[in-house]
Amino acid sequence: MAQALQAPQEIDAAIIGAGPVGLFQVFELGLLEIKAHVIDALPIVGGQPAELYPDKPIYDIPGIPMCSGLGLIEALQQQIAPFAPTFHLGHEVSTLQPQPDGRFLLESAQGLKLLAKAVFIAAGVGAFQPRRLTVPGIEAFEGRQLFYRVPSAAQFAGQQLVIVGGGDSALDWAAHFASQAEHRPASVVLLHRRDGFQATPAAVARMRALCEAQQMQFMVGQVAGFEADDDRLRAVRVMGPDGVTRTLAADALLAFLGMSPKLGPIADWQIDIERKQLLVNTETYGTSVPGIFAVGDINTYPGKKKLILCGFHEATLAAYGALPFVYPGKDVFFQYTTTSPRLHAMLGVATPEKKG
Amino acid sequence: MAQALQAPQEIDAAIIGAGPVGLFQVFELGLLEIKAHVIDALPIVGGQPAELYPDKPIYDIPGIPMCSGLGLIEALQQQIAPFAPTFHLGHEVSTLQPQPDGRFLLESAQGLKLLAKAVFIAAGVGAFQPRRLTVPGIEAFEGRQLFYRVPSAAQFAGQQLVIVGGGDSALDWAAHFASQAEHRPASVVLLHRRDGFQATPAAVARMRALCEAQQMQFMVGQVAGFEADDDRLRAVRVMGPDGVTRTLAADALLAFLGMSPKLGPIADWQIDIERKQLLVNTETYGTSVPGIFAVGDINTYPGKKKLILCGFHEATLAAYGALPFVYPGKDVFFQYTTTSPRLHAMLGVATPEKKG
Repeated sequence: MAQALQAPQEIDAAIIGAGPVGLFQVFELGLLEIKAHVIDALPIVGGQPAELYPDKPIYDIPGIPMCSGLGLIEALQQQIAPFAPTFHLGHEVSTLQPQPDGRFLLESAQGLKLLAKAVFIAAGVGAFQPRRLTVPGIEAFEGRQLFYRVPSAAQFAGQQLVIVGGGDSALDWAAHFASQAEHRPASVVLLHRRDGFQATPAAVARMRALCEAQQMQFMVGQVAGFEADDDRLRAVRVMGPDGVTRTLAADALLAFLGMSPKLGPIADWQIDIERKQLLVNTETYGTSVPGIFAVGDINTYPGKKKLILCGFHEATLAAYGALPFVYPGKDVFFQYTTTSPRLHAMLGVATPEKKG
Repeated sequence: MAQALQAPQEIDAAIIGAGPVGLFQVFELGLLEIKAHVIDALPIVGGQPAELYPDKPIYDIPGIPMCSGLGLIEALQQQIAPFAPTFHLGHEVSTLQPQPDGRFLLESAQGLKLLAKAVFIAAGVGAFQPRRLTVPGIEAFEGRQLFYRVPSAAQFAGQQLVIVGGGDSALDWAAHFASQAEHRPASVVLLHRRDGFQATPAAVARMRALCEAQQMQFMVGQVAGFEADDDRLRAVRVMGPDGVTRTLAADALLAFLGMSPKLGPIADWQIDIERKQLLVNTETYGTSVPGIFAVGDINTYPGKKKLILCGFHEATLAAYGALPFVYPGKDVFFQYTTTSPRLHAMLGVATPEKKG
């Protein structure tokens, strides 16, 4: 039957976000014998530390004087391995719908369907998305003549290409197109609001050399408007540091303005929000919707600090908070990993012989 | 002048308790440029993990799949080393007095005097003290004929010695006295409430062999009363499992009934207490006395779990909570150890070259 094919998978706990706090949530749920499914929009586990600073040293994980972002993620993966979580990577949860029986239906744009008794939102600061140009109406050209990622390097052959930004991405792509042999654009103009760059000195030097050689141009200014014929972009209006607005012919616009976190569909889930963060209580880190918990950078409460170590604590109390939803009527038990033979069996380690 | 000699040392922050949470409190204060003094009644740092389970594996420190109690303490000591805390070990803080200027005077029985702007109580479950016999009136003999620690092994020579308990301490000391060549007691009787022991099988076997050899006796029963001439203990009354009470001659009584945590003088510091724990808010982990914070096992709040990882979070927020007391009027700054050159300088590490 078609219905059976589309039925959601029934699970105990869903964790949205596979960053360090989402991973440790698996561990704390595991100690309470709750099996977890972990969903992440990225194709890899690790969230921000793995994606944004894999090699940067971290100094403030308690008991670890120094580790890299990637090292921390690897240690957490090893720690949660005994609880064998199910990962659904490359899935962005698009809807989260409370069901009449108290459970939650999660669906991803990529076709995942889960029916969970408790949901843990550990989505960090949300999904990272490129910052957009703020010129009214210009969004109409997105995907056709305005791009925030390079769609295909051959696409701009013969075109008047304007690249906006002052970081490595902008300078590297400008140099790439300006020095290309095949599919070369007719012209390459780098546009940045000031004559100073966040890019590495080497990238700046390379760009300046290409300008010297007249293979590209650099212009100081900000996009203040645009000109179009029918629905085709013809030029951008650039406001210079002298206050004068000039017109710059453009068949295509590539903007690299950095990444900005977006709460995304989570904002539509009817959960109380304060300044783009999910409001939680500090007893269970539950949100305004019973059964939905929020841990790590995505939540807020009085005193909140966006630190990984705080997320670890939040995930711990949230696991206990979820017990009544996963095992209604079951007594809460509390055991220490140092002494509990039951926990030792779950962790796959030997219980030391009792002494004293 | 005598007054100068007795003047307390003026400091920013005092941490009472050198367990894992007290040690990590040093780190979080250090990141905020607050130097800490750490006081502990024990002669070593490390608190419970170092004292009660130095070699037992711990599995639930986030990012550390397994470590020993001692290993965790060593890692924390390494982590806080850049902030060079001052340790006052072997000092039990006996009084904590708010001063008219808002500071706190801490005094130890051993002569330490500190005047601190903020105080962090990280005293775990308090000081561990031996469990006492609960027979009314028997406390009058403590230190003369009733002991909870062995004062001197020679002291019981020629005496009728009764040892109470079923753990390693009781069995080991019974075997020690029963097999002693010099200073042997006239008789050694081990008294335990049942014929089953928490001691290791080897200690039990050794005790049984000594009983076989008539070098000592084992008796099942509980101390239900005592007999005394004037103020001298003569015998204990022992209630057997058959419900019959027998008299057992005793010149000296050694009881090993385990250790029990005691809040000790902290209970007298006018801080709001709930079930022997200090009540805190979850914004700053401040107690009912502004400027006094409580972190780790000694505090309580809705949802509290006595876990080291929770204490790490509490210590972090408490450090921020203390800023207005240590640096009144100074803006709270928040920096990440991954990216802040200022924090890197304090931690004594190099700041990576900026990219992108």
